[in-house]
Amino acid sequence: MRKNYVYSFEQGRADGDASMKDLLGGKGANLAEMAKLGLPVPPGFTITTDACKYLLVNDTLPAGLEDEVMEALGTLTRCHGGSLGTTFLVSVRSGAKFSMPGMMDTTLNLGLNDENVEEFAKHTGNPHLAWDCYRRFLEMYGTTVFGIKRKRFLHCIKKLMNRKGITHDWQLEISDLKKLVAQFKQIIEKHGHVVPQDPHEQLWGAIRAVFGSWKSDRAIIYRNMHDIPDDLGTAANIQTMVYGNMNDRSATGVAFTRNPSTGEKGLFGEYLVNAQGEEVVAGIRTPLPVTEAACAAKDLHGHSLEVLLPKAYADLRRYAALLEGHYRDLMDLEFTIMDGVLYMLQCRAGKRTGRAAFTIAHDLVLEGVITEDDGILRVSAMQHEQILHKTIDPSATVEEIATGLPASPGAAVGEIVFSPEEAARLKELGRSVILVRIETSPEDIGGMRAAEGILTQSGGMTSHAALVARGMGKPCVCGVEALEIDYATSSFTVGGARYAAGDTITIDGSGPLVGHVYKGSVPLLKSEPTAEYLALTKWAESRRRLRVRANAETPEEAREARRLGAEGIGLSRTEHMFFGDNRITAVREMILADTTEDRRMALAKLLPMQRDDFKQIFEIMAGLPVTIRLLDPPLHEFLPHDEVGIKNVAWSLGIDVERVRKRVNSLKEFNPMLGFRGVRLAIVFPEIVEMQVRAIFEAAIEAGYSLNGETLLEIMVPLVGFQKEIEQAAIMINRVYLGTCRDDGPIVSYKIGTMIELPRACKVAHQIAQCVEFFSFGTNDLTQTTLGISRDDIKTFLESYLAQGIFDRDPFTSIDVEGVGALMKEAVEAARRVDPHFKLGICGEHGGDEKSILFFEEIGLDYVSCSPPRVPIARLAAAQAAITQGRMTATRARHSALV
Amino acid sequence: MRKNYVYSFEQGRADGDASMKDLLGGKGANLAEMAKLGLPVPPGFTITTDACKYLLVNDTLPAGLEDEVMEALGTLTRCHGGSLGTTFLVSVRSGAKFSMPGMMDTTLNLGLNDENVEEFAKHTGNPHLAWDCYRRFLEMYGTTVFGIKRKRFLHCIKKLMNRKGITHDWQLEISDLKKLVAQFKQIIEKHGHVVPQDPHEQLWGAIRAVFGSWKSDRAIIYRNMHDIPDDLGTAANIQTMVYGNMNDRSATGVAFTRNPSTGEKGLFGEYLVNAQGEEVVAGIRTPLPVTEAACAAKDLHGHSLEVLLPKAYADLRRYAALLEGHYRDLMDLEFTIMDGVLYMLQCRAGKRTGRAAFTIAHDLVLEGVITEDDGILRVSAMQHEQILHKTIDPSATVEEIATGLPASPGAAVGEIVFSPEEAARLKELGRSVILVRIETSPEDIGGMRAAEGILTQSGGMTSHAALVARGMGKPCVCGVEALEIDYATSSFTVGGARYAAGDTITIDGSGPLVGHVYKGSVPLLKSEPTAEYLALTKWAESRRRLRVRANAETPEEAREARRLGAEGIGLSRTEHMFFGDNRITAVREMILADTTEDRRMALAKLLPMQRDDFKQIFEIMAGLPVTIRLLDPPLHEFLPHDEVGIKNVAWSLGIDVERVRKRVNSLKEFNPMLGFRGVRLAIVFPEIVEMQVRAIFEAAIEAGYSLNGETLLEIMVPLVGFQKEIEQAAIMINRVYLGTCRDDGPIVSYKIGTMIELPRACKVAHQIAQCVEFFSFGTNDLTQTTLGISRDDIKTFLESYLAQGIFDRDPFTSIDVEGVGALMKEAVEAARRVDPHFKLGICGEHGGDEKSILFFEEIGLDYVSCSPPRVPIARLAAAQAAITQGRMTATRARHSALV
Repeated sequence: MRKNYVYSFEQGRADGDASMKDLLGGKGANLAEMAKLGLPVPPGFTITTDACKYLLVNDTLPAGLEDEVMEALGTLTRCHGGSLGTTFLVSVRSGAKFSMPGMMDTTLNLGLNDENVEEFAKHTGNPHLAWDCYRRFLEMYGTTVFGIKRKRFLHCIKKLMNRKGITHDWQLEISDLKKLVAQFKQIIEKHGHVVPQDPHEQLWGAIRAVFGSWKSDRAIIYRNMHDIPDDLGTAANIQTMVYGNMNDRSATGVAFTRNPSTGEKGLFGEYLVNAQGEEVVAGIRTPLPVTEAACAAKDLHGHSLEVLLPKAYADLRRYAALLEGHYRDLMDLEFTIMDGVLYMLQCRAGKRTGRAAFTIAHDLVLEGVITEDDGILRVSAMQHEQILHKTIDPSATVEEIATGLPASPGAAVGEIVFSPEEAARLKELGRSVILVRIETSPEDIGGMRAAEGILTQSGGMTSHAALVARGMGKPCVCGVEALEIDYATSSFTVGGARYAAGDTITIDGSGPLVGHVYKGSVPLLKSEPTAEYLALTKWAESRRRLRVRANAETPEEAREARRLGAEGIGLSRTEHMFFGDNRITAVREMILADTTEDRRMALAKLLPMQRDDFKQIFEIMAGLPVTIRLLDPPLHEFLPHDEVGIKNVAWSLGIDVERVRKRVNSLKEFNPMLGFRGVRLAIVFPEIVEMQVRAIFEAAIEAGYSLNGETLLEIMVPLVGFQKEIEQAAIMINRVYLGTCRDDGPIVSYKIGTMIELPRACKVAHQIAQCVEFFSFGTNDLTQTTLGISRDDIKTFLESYLAQGIFDRDPFTSIDVEGVGALMKEAVEAARRVDPHFKLGICGEHGGDEKSILFFEEIGLDYVSCSPPRVPIARLAAAQAAITQGRMTATRARHSALV
Repeated sequence: MRKNYVYSFEQGRADGDASMKDLLGGKGANLAEMAKLGLPVPPGFTITTDACKYLLVNDTLPAGLEDEVMEALGTLTRCHGGSLGTTFLVSVRSGAKFSMPGMMDTTLNLGLNDENVEEFAKHTGNPHLAWDCYRRFLEMYGTTVFGIKRKRFLHCIKKLMNRKGITHDWQLEISDLKKLVAQFKQIIEKHGHVVPQDPHEQLWGAIRAVFGSWKSDRAIIYRNMHDIPDDLGTAANIQTMVYGNMNDRSATGVAFTRNPSTGEKGLFGEYLVNAQGEEVVAGIRTPLPVTEAACAAKDLHGHSLEVLLPKAYADLRRYAALLEGHYRDLMDLEFTIMDGVLYMLQCRAGKRTGRAAFTIAHDLVLEGVITEDDGILRVSAMQHEQILHKTIDPSATVEEIATGLPASPGAAVGEIVFSPEEAARLKELGRSVILVRIETSPEDIGGMRAAEGILTQSGGMTSHAALVARGMGKPCVCGVEALEIDYATSSFTVGGARYAAGDTITIDGSGPLVGHVYKGSVPLLKSEPTAEYLALTKWAESRRRLRVRANAETPEEAREARRLGAEGIGLSRTEHMFFGDNRITAVREMILADTTEDRRMALAKLLPMQRDDFKQIFEIMAGLPVTIRLLDPPLHEFLPHDEVGIKNVAWSLGIDVERVRKRVNSLKEFNPMLGFRGVRLAIVFPEIVEMQVRAIFEAAIEAGYSLNGETLLEIMVPLVGFQKEIEQAAIMINRVYLGTCRDDGPIVSYKIGTMIELPRACKVAHQIAQCVEFFSFGTNDLTQTTLGISRDDIKTFLESYLAQGIFDRDPFTSIDVEGVGALMKEAVEAARRVDPHFKLGICGEHGGDEKSILFFEEIGLDYVSCSPPRVPIARLAAAQAAITQGRMTATRARHSALV
């Protein structure tokens, strides 16, 4: 039979392999790969993503699927003897191309019903196991297939355990489990459902639930956050159950081939004895370290898997090494031990902290596993950003109130909040919060995103909170069991003290061994790079072609930019200098002037201040290029718009209130973004530009900057759309230059350029290029105009657009290649036709975004300019872009050689 | 000597000819042409526009010019004997490529000084002439070269005439003239100037003044209004004076080869006996008709040139016929008669009313002078607009308060204003005004533009007021001598009654013989087309390729569109229908709804209303296509923004004020133009689109519109930028369609299309075109986004941009071909690659602009859509575009055949 929708696997053979992630999802492809490698994988089969996509479009499963599934199930049955439910159970798990931990639905122990549970007990000789599996099955089926809240089931268990005075669910007796089964069936009935008795019917319900979970809100949000396309669909994996809850020689766990937090070599994992897999991930019980060394560090001598189940531990170590070597990367493994025998349930590239990413990539290169280029490509911008995260100032006096697991690195300060909604609300108000939860669940994602950091009472290093926080690059401390959180009173107590919502705390999830919770606001420092980080970024520097500059206007920013390795300033916004206390008055005087004369007088007051601003920047950036942009925003931005502000301005300038009000009104604009700004100001009020340019030249002379033939100074005219605009602006600049320089004085070298931020500028770039020496793409405004979307107003529909897949990503974060990018490409080609060495850069916020940088490399820009903190990230991203671009060019060359 | 800057002419020969307007200006080129034709042109020479351009750029006249001028002057001197000032005088007149009447400076009688005035008197044997010329020279030189206000000189003359009790300046005696000369010199001295005694120095002053006047504010404004480029420069014409003020057998006048108001055949002109040319144009004295028939019609029997100077009249008739035949157009002639002998001073294509333009073009075709194609090309959109002007309702009872000259056709109603400033101010407030002036001058242009119509006390059919009003297509009545205007009290009296500023009057300048002034507001009718108009437009229809539709949303507009020949509706904005009294409440309810359910309930109330709207339009437009655009504007446009409005809405919907305020605030946008609107609304609130589309289909079925395979209905989705947007919108529309049609019901045929109004849409047009059946370019928004200019905010810099030549024209009036046009062209080509017959239209306001239509023809659009009143204009413009495009194609074909 031709394989259409179902791919089988069992130890030693499989229909699929690791390369088939599109079709089988990550989990399915890697199960097949592990099976082929001969690892102990319980037999099973994968239903492809195609079936899911078919269901999503047609609202029904494809014809022929049923036969294929029955065929595959028949093979399992033949291998186990008996039938589904009597001799074996299955798990049904989702598995998309990209890992979406905790986002998708899983059903375990599928196949049991009121009758065959006894047969299964008989078959396994373990009635406790049979009833434990049955109650687990009902709970998961109720949750996954019928959408009943999980806490309804957990509540029953808790009540029962309390009554019996036990602390772990494996202490429940068979009679307890039977009671729970009855109670669970009642809960499900109350919700208007009945779990089918027919194991096959159960199976189809679970399969549909897995496929349907692709469209759940939390899955959609997760995909948006991680830039995962909406049309991939998920696969469903049906696999024979092995039972970590069989007895005390059984366990379930998760392991990484190296430490995913630090990158340190050596197996790193956690496990729970007598438990099933979901308990580890859900963070209900706090698991134990796999290795004895890690247990010892926590004063848990002798509790490690290494000591308790040495044979299984030895197998795990062996398989971990084998898989890391095979996949040439850090692997994240799921395993179950049944009666002392190890089974592998999943392997995938492990999520890791930024620090670990650099260390692992670096170490794998040194180990000869991957090339330097591959090592450079192994770290993402998000990981990079993370490594640059804040740490606690070591000189600070701290008052530690608790410790927990260092689940995600970085330190954060904020007010305590207990609900994700409140976190989001306060964030909107500009406040910093720490989200404190007993444990987190996918519903909390919005709040986690809004928080500076996350603190949980339960859950280990692989709990939901830990995984998600690491992905977000947010500090997180997990499993702080000393906390007693009471949602009802919005407070927690620890060590006898009570902390309420609104109190400030500091958390530090950087580890390596423990995470910390401190009272109050502790001073934070930026992080120090590791040796591995420095080595890897050094390799990267030798690959980089794009120059990286910073957008900076204050001396502090310029210093920071230089410190972080910026190779110049790509955008210095002069108007930000206008807002100083003693300046804004002169600026307003200038705006309120009725005549050119009066305007000139006010500008004369600003001149020395602007000159000082520029002088400082030139001194700091000595030897590196600085691009200064002339006044850009509409003038009304400098005036108050409320009555009190208007009166204050009138009073401080000694003029009539009515006159100020009139001017404020006359400058009001319907669409300020498309208004009287940029070069338009220069054309109508040339005296403003004249003052600015004079200040620039005088400052350059005083600072000894860009003199004697060294051309570092770049003057940039914003919002140009017409050739004549830049012609006239250039005439003004050159005229001021001639008026500023004395015959015997030093010669300031300068270039004149334009921001390219209007579609028209791209269309007439060949004309504009003839008048200037450089372009700097202002991709913020170019995106606004090309897409007709105001960045300030996008929020009303951005979520919908991402959810519906109209945007792959927020176009203000990553460049819209097809629209904005196409216009940029056109302008680049036009400019390079005018002069093959025409200087081209970009200074919008996309300048620090790695996906955009890849595109900028592709179209051959000379430099990107971004905010100073993004400079290191942009530098590495530029190196990665150069490598990727080089490989693409090589691939194309090979292809065309073949044709 | 090679001719660089100076081109001479004299009766029978000339260096230049009529084709050299770029270099010699219109006046200079035509003087050369007339001289070559052997007409009696006083000898002289033209300094080229190149010299002017050189001066404008370099602030100095070009080297070598002085030698060339002296050489040319030497020729004149040799021809007259004696020297400049003693035996002959010269005029110095400007003359640009395009006529700019009254805008530029002129100096007559140049050459006289305190000494040679007596020699000149002796030479001419006419001391009165000599002193009259001298005082005229001083007045003009003072005005032109020194910029002294003309009324300072006129005031002296008036005082003297009053004292002497005379009414005409030619009644002044020699001693009076000498007094005036002394007084004028004092005036000039008081202003800090002295008129040079050296005739050559006088000449250079006048030449510089002519060139300098190119940059005067009024010239700049005139050029902006008439789309004349700023960099053309003007020529200067130096010509031997002939004296219309020599004696009673002398005269000066202006004539048209046909009636420029009606187009009627036969010489049409005015003259003044014993006067110089400027007096006719300036409207100081009211001139007499040239022909006896015209005099007789005014009860001025025997006062015509025909009777008084028959020889000169016969020559004038002869030359007029000769020139019309030569130039194949209506000609505007200036002449002077010196002692009975006719001299020709200027000829140019005559400005004409719209009605005349059609009649003359038609008649010239019938006379075999020009081809039908040329006839069609002879009428401009402005003239066309004019012929469509309003007339007085013949059934109305009117109370005539005065009559005057029918200077510019059309009737207008408005409040009386006496100053151009006030006219502009009231216009801003949305009020209609009639500008009433004693006479107008170039400073009044702004006010004339703001007024509905213009009324003057003095001045003839060729006065400033008349010429400018005709150019603007504004009704104008001139020379209403019965008016006594008193600017001081802002009132005029006529027939014993007093009318003050703010009183309403009606004027009618349509003629043919007299213009009327009526009391109060008289009902107006649209004009009836002439037979010639109908014939010409019928010829045009056979040339037209572009279809012309109208933008219409109300039944009235649809009816008007159909009446005016629209071939369908190209844009029906559904949101305008939302503002009705009973609808806006439901619309607001819909916007304020918190849930989809509530929104659906409010929409259900709107459904029957929208259905009715559409039904009416479909019935009116039966058999013609209608494009309905789905909801476009941001929702906040439907909510009040002031406190009172918010309270009213809350009250009328019975909901909490705070909730309304919150919603109003949450919908507020920084840049509404780039906000939550267009297809974005459809994506986020599909229920709105569903209601609209359901209403459309139900209305089509009820109206029997677009049924049974006749595809007339076009549904248009606005503001699309991404392929997935239109894909999803199309799915919604098609789904509603399936839900609306009953299986056994009639089948509505429809097309789905998009507005192309974002640069991104143009760049991805190949993708969008695959999902729809037509594009309609929304050039208003496409211009806003491509240029980054908000139409509502452009006013702050538009004037500067036009004045400095950055814009040739307001880009919201005429399409920006290089920017917006280039994007359109790209989209057109992409769509036609998808389907060579892909339907393409345009529905922005450029759809009614003739310059834009030429471009739309060039890129091969299928139709334009404009406001109903512009439909006839667009139809003719489309025919002209087809002819022009055909000729360009033919020319290109010839060129490439040669290559």
